[in-house]
Amino acid sequence: MKVIADLCVIPIGVGVSVSRYIAACEKIFQEAGLKFHLHAYGTNIEGEWDEVFAAVKRCHEIIHGMGAPRISSTLKFGTRTDRDQTMEEKMKSVQDKM
Amino acid sequence: MKVIADLCVIPIGVGVSVSRYIAACEKIFQEAGLKFHLHAYGTNIEGEWDEVFAAVKRCHEIIHGMGAPRISSTLKFGTRTDRDQTMEEKMKSVQDKM
Amino acid sequence: MKVIADLCVIPIGVGVSVSRYIAACEKIFQEAGLKFHLHAYGTNIEGEWDEVFAAVKRCHEIIHGMGAPRISSTLKFGTRTDRDQTMEEKMKSVQDKM
Amino acid sequence: MKVIADLCVIPIGVGVSVSRYIAACEKIFQEAGLKFHLHAYGTNIEGEWDEVFAAVKRCHEIIHGMGAPRISSTLKFGTRTDRDQTMEEKMKSVQDKM
Repeated sequence: MKVIADLCVIPIGVGVSVSRYIAACEKIFQEAGLKFHLHAYGTNIEGEWDEVFAAVKRCHEIIHGMGAPRISSTLKFGTRTDRDQTMEEKMKSVQDKM
Repeated sequence: MKVIADLCVIPIGVGVSVSRYIAACEKIFQEAGLKFHLHAYGTNIEGEWDEVFAAVKRCHEIIHGMGAPRISSTLKFGTRTDRDQTMEEKMKSVQDKM
Repeated sequence: MKVIADLCVIPIGVGVSVSRYIAACEKIFQEAGLKFHLHAYGTNIEGEWDEVFAAVKRCHEIIHGMGAPRISSTLKFGTRTDRDQTMEEKMKSVQDKM
Repeated sequence: MKVIADLCVIPIGVGVSVSRYIAACEKIFQEAGLKFHLHAYGTNIEGEWDEVFAAVKRCHEIIHGMGAPRISSTLKFGTRTDRDQTMEEKMKSVQDKM
């Protein structure tokens, strides 16, 4: 099952600057060989369900390992059985109608 | 790693009434032996990371199996390493301060 | 336009304990005369769009005023034009099918 | 109060193809003079609180007007009082650490 997801991770208890924790997540997606795209409020991720969710788990593990005692994440994720769809196609589908 | 999560599943392409799909998810949490609590915009779930996320995956599989061609979910999930915390404790902590 | 919403507010830069900030939000909903229900990962809110969103704005203002330099919130919100629906009816609709 | 937000709107009861509704939202952000950026699972929006939330309300009104009987949206939104921050700065801050 393929999934297109959007992850926003918030480390809690480490002050107001959280970008180095987010950067660590991006490296995880990269090393996992996943398609990903950083935006201003999260990261789009595309891949097989198990690989995407293994990377999400790895984010929590790594961020705790970096010293954050608490993490709250928001993940949106979509699956479909009617047809394959990539992140680019999702965006193009909207842009074509603008 | 223990997680407290909140899942909101939206089956797309099956009309405006989606409650039977949500009910199917509640059964999945029950059969998985997870602590869960339905509210008006999702379901709180508490348990070990792998068990919670296996149940979330099962929700998408079952809902597609029930005929929904597309699903978009929003999942919030929190982990902490400083101490154990249950869903009841999270709520009591707020209620004590009201 | 009536809305059923679910708000999860995360004050950032104030340490790991955030319950007193959440409690302050609950008081805002109460004083606004809104129907609301605290759960383990947020608060369900029901009311007229403008009143609900005014309360959400007030939450950010109050939490900043309490000393939090940064806040990140997740809000889910649903509207429908086919029929009126309360938070209780949404839950009952699922529970009847379990 | 300035806000950086991320909106994901899901029209329900109009079939699996929802891109024309999302395109209508993009036009609303454009006409409102807001900074916005479409990604694969939503749209980043930056601006003054009242202007951003007025546009979000307009999205629900327009999408219902286009025939969708039900809408469920997920909005993330962040405010900070310690300093000004743009969407570009948020992303650059992460990219510099990668």
